[in-house]
Amino acid sequence: MVDFNGQAPGRVRKAPEGFLGPDSLRRVSSLPRDERRGFIRAAFAAALAGTAAAGARAQDNPLPAGGGDPRILELPPHSTGLGQPVVTDGYGKPSRYETNVQRRQSPGLTQTTQASVSFAPLQSLFGIVTPSGLHFERHHQGWWDIDPSQHRLMLNGSDEKLLKRPMVFTVDELMRLPSVSRFHFIECGANTGMEWGNVAVPTCQYTHGMISCSEFTGVPLKILLDMAGADVRRGRYVLAEGADGSSMTRTIPMELVERGEVFVAYGQNGEMLRPENGYPLRLVVPGVQGVSWVKYLRRIEVGDQPYGSKDEVLHYVDLMPSGLHRQYTSIQEVKSVVTTPSGGQLLLDKGYHQISGLAWSGRGKVAGVDVSVDGGRNWRAARLQAPVMHKCLTRFTLDWAWDGKPALIQSRARDETGHVQPSYRQLRAVRGSRSIYHNNAIQTWLVQEDGEVRNVQLS
Amino acid sequence: MVDFNGQAPGRVRKAPEGFLGPDSLRRVSSLPRDERRGFIRAAFAAALAGTAAAGARAQDNPLPAGGGDPRILELPPHSTGLGQPVVTDGYGKPSRYETNVQRRQSPGLTQTTQASVSFAPLQSLFGIVTPSGLHFERHHQGWWDIDPSQHRLMLNGSDEKLLKRPMVFTVDELMRLPSVSRFHFIECGANTGMEWGNVAVPTCQYTHGMISCSEFTGVPLKILLDMAGADVRRGRYVLAEGADGSSMTRTIPMELVERGEVFVAYGQNGEMLRPENGYPLRLVVPGVQGVSWVKYLRRIEVGDQPYGSKDEVLHYVDLMPSGLHRQYTSIQEVKSVVTTPSGGQLLLDKGYHQISGLAWSGRGKVAGVDVSVDGGRNWRAARLQAPVMHKCLTRFTLDWAWDGKPALIQSRARDETGHVQPSYRQLRAVRGSRSIYHNNAIQTWLVQEDGEVRNVQLS
Repeated sequence: MVDFNGQAPGRVRKAPEGFLGPDSLRRVSSLPRDERRGFIRAAFAAALAGTAAAGARAQDNPLPAGGGDPRILELPPHSTGLGQPVVTDGYGKPSRYETNVQRRQSPGLTQTTQASVSFAPLQSLFGIVTPSGLHFERHHQGWWDIDPSQHRLMLNGSDEKLLKRPMVFTVDELMRLPSVSRFHFIECGANTGMEWGNVAVPTCQYTHGMISCSEFTGVPLKILLDMAGADVRRGRYVLAEGADGSSMTRTIPMELVERGEVFVAYGQNGEMLRPENGYPLRLVVPGVQGVSWVKYLRRIEVGDQPYGSKDEVLHYVDLMPSGLHRQYTSIQEVKSVVTTPSGGQLLLDKGYHQISGLAWSGRGKVAGVDVSVDGGRNWRAARLQAPVMHKCLTRFTLDWAWDGKPALIQSRARDETGHVQPSYRQLRAVRGSRSIYHNNAIQTWLVQEDGEVRNVQLS
Repeated sequence: MVDFNGQAPGRVRKAPEGFLGPDSLRRVSSLPRDERRGFIRAAFAAALAGTAAAGARAQDNPLPAGGGDPRILELPPHSTGLGQPVVTDGYGKPSRYETNVQRRQSPGLTQTTQASVSFAPLQSLFGIVTPSGLHFERHHQGWWDIDPSQHRLMLNGSDEKLLKRPMVFTVDELMRLPSVSRFHFIECGANTGMEWGNVAVPTCQYTHGMISCSEFTGVPLKILLDMAGADVRRGRYVLAEGADGSSMTRTIPMELVERGEVFVAYGQNGEMLRPENGYPLRLVVPGVQGVSWVKYLRRIEVGDQPYGSKDEVLHYVDLMPSGLHRQYTSIQEVKSVVTTPSGGQLLLDKGYHQISGLAWSGRGKVAGVDVSVDGGRNWRAARLQAPVMHKCLTRFTLDWAWDGKPALIQSRARDETGHVQPSYRQLRAVRGSRSIYHNNAIQTWLVQEDGEVRNVQLS
């Protein structure tokens, strides 16, 4: 009754994380092709026996018992027993089989775990929403779970004329004001920073995992500045200040605020922000690097010039070949990465595989993504999953039949403003290799003949 | 320096859940207006002192210390101390101040907690995405955390001609096939069922909390049936069967499959499905009641007639005044509910409040939502938040200045097919009051003079 129709055993989409560990996969893949099929076929047969019997039971229409194989009666416990009660005593959690899907720190990248980064496991994620429990983190002095009933947001001007009515809001007061809910990506300016120097970290969790995407909810900053009587003609800048000990302050151009894009968020993916992402208030600055999305937001000041704060002068500046720094380089330029297959994954067999990845641009919508499997000699247009939203992640997919030979997989995104993702050669020609920030170059994954996928850097 | 600009202390958006409990709110609201302001003002002043001092510190540009008030030096610990390290040893969780935002069971609604329901806390949610940890649950025999490496999906026909090549897929094999990611709501057919009998349960968590919305990822069932050689001309129905002990089987019209809308999901909100929502496989049937989104999906059978399974004959049928049952009433018709303000919440003061709610239709996109604050005499068009998606929740908002008098708040949605949400009078005229399922009538919330919000039913 069972026919595998030429289906090869699936590659593991999520190795080294996920429910099938690399060890058992390697065991299967090390078997000769025939035995491998036998192994899988036997597993299927056992499972099918249970399935058919259970199916019969479900319909009260018994099927033949299949020659007396005792396994026919081995129904799994979940098909006969009473399961767990509804979850009302706690917040729901992922399956115990998914515990390896986690944010991870890059060993040695930072000297403390408080001023550090944890990377989102992009290779294990689907679609465009990042679960809040796996959202990347970047802290400058650790995270806090601040009592929202004690937290305040103050609005003032750098002089009295720039803002007529200084105000202080409770979180609750902000939550009764007009709100917007919008899907946006947030990317750390240092994402993919290790690749400038050709470090070639192993997985896309480490190459690109300082990006996440959520539906944020909050009050447009424009509304608050209007209430407070800000002079937006002279006050062309806003200073955003966080309440944690890192003294984070960032200059935001008033132009972004006037467009209505910047908002004071309290919600993320339907619920309140998570503590490690700024609970109870965070500034959302779509398209701009994450450091400007100030967490634990406590103050907005209107000013008439950029503030040149420590995180705009000492950090978050891009070192150019000339020895000068680029400053206020906030926009996250058009970029993409293939997440499947990607570094650390294993293709068990040739044949059909779906290539899947993420694209984004801090300038607007993604207009298209081209994918190459031969290191950039030939390109094919990928499908973009709807909805394609403004300054939001876009999921792309492409059908691919792997012939079992080495393949160099790349993606190249372009946005609605005409910007195109550069190659490393193009990017380094302009910026050298010590910029740290704003690396949006095309990523290359090598699929080896043995099915292992590795990070390689093509010029 | 501080001017409150006439801002009243905010109402509690999220009572009785959320960070401000109803007790402390009632204490504040029981104070005379002047004292109430004083209470809040004092709290602000204390907070502001800390804020200004911290701000000065942050910018290395000391401001006057404000008259020697000792509170000026009381910086909160999070502004001076070292916070928590990045989260790499576990899956992220909400703030400890949000622990009351939970799914809840309706006491006495069911006799066991395994064959039961937990309702999503709609009154505490924003936007359209439901966090997976708060997604409503409906189990018929409890939930299971099934080992995905042992789970299989079988495809067969009710006779050999209806499906040429019966197949068995591992989860991993499904995950290498072409996938789609789409945002859809899922609503239990029994949602709002208690209101048929005018029970008027207190909060929208219990009136409407059997709905949630996620980005689902999986393989279109059409692709699997094509691979297996299904005869979709004669095989006009599909049976979906779950692996848990409830023997859940549901008939799905092939028409929905052919449209490409039905898919076998493994992903939800970016990660794998949660165990209580069908991990590792669940059928997604957009627009159709939740019971057809079979969890722990293990088998798809192609047939030439509806199956009349126990959950299509004994349950999930709508009792009409004539004594006959409506059967196969799967589509979730156009519906909406105001979530703020809603039952159990408390408005602390008159003045500006944003009305916010959710609308949806199992027939397509929401075309518009009208809101009334006078029990349906006058209606105003609400704003719809983008993106408005096919068979997906749509968030709507409306500005409202409460005059402090009793108000009857309602929302009425219409969809792109021209269907309009009915009143209770209209719905009961056709269906009586014992249908249990498919109550999409207009919900009314009474805002009392004291600011309390109650569930009332208008004819």
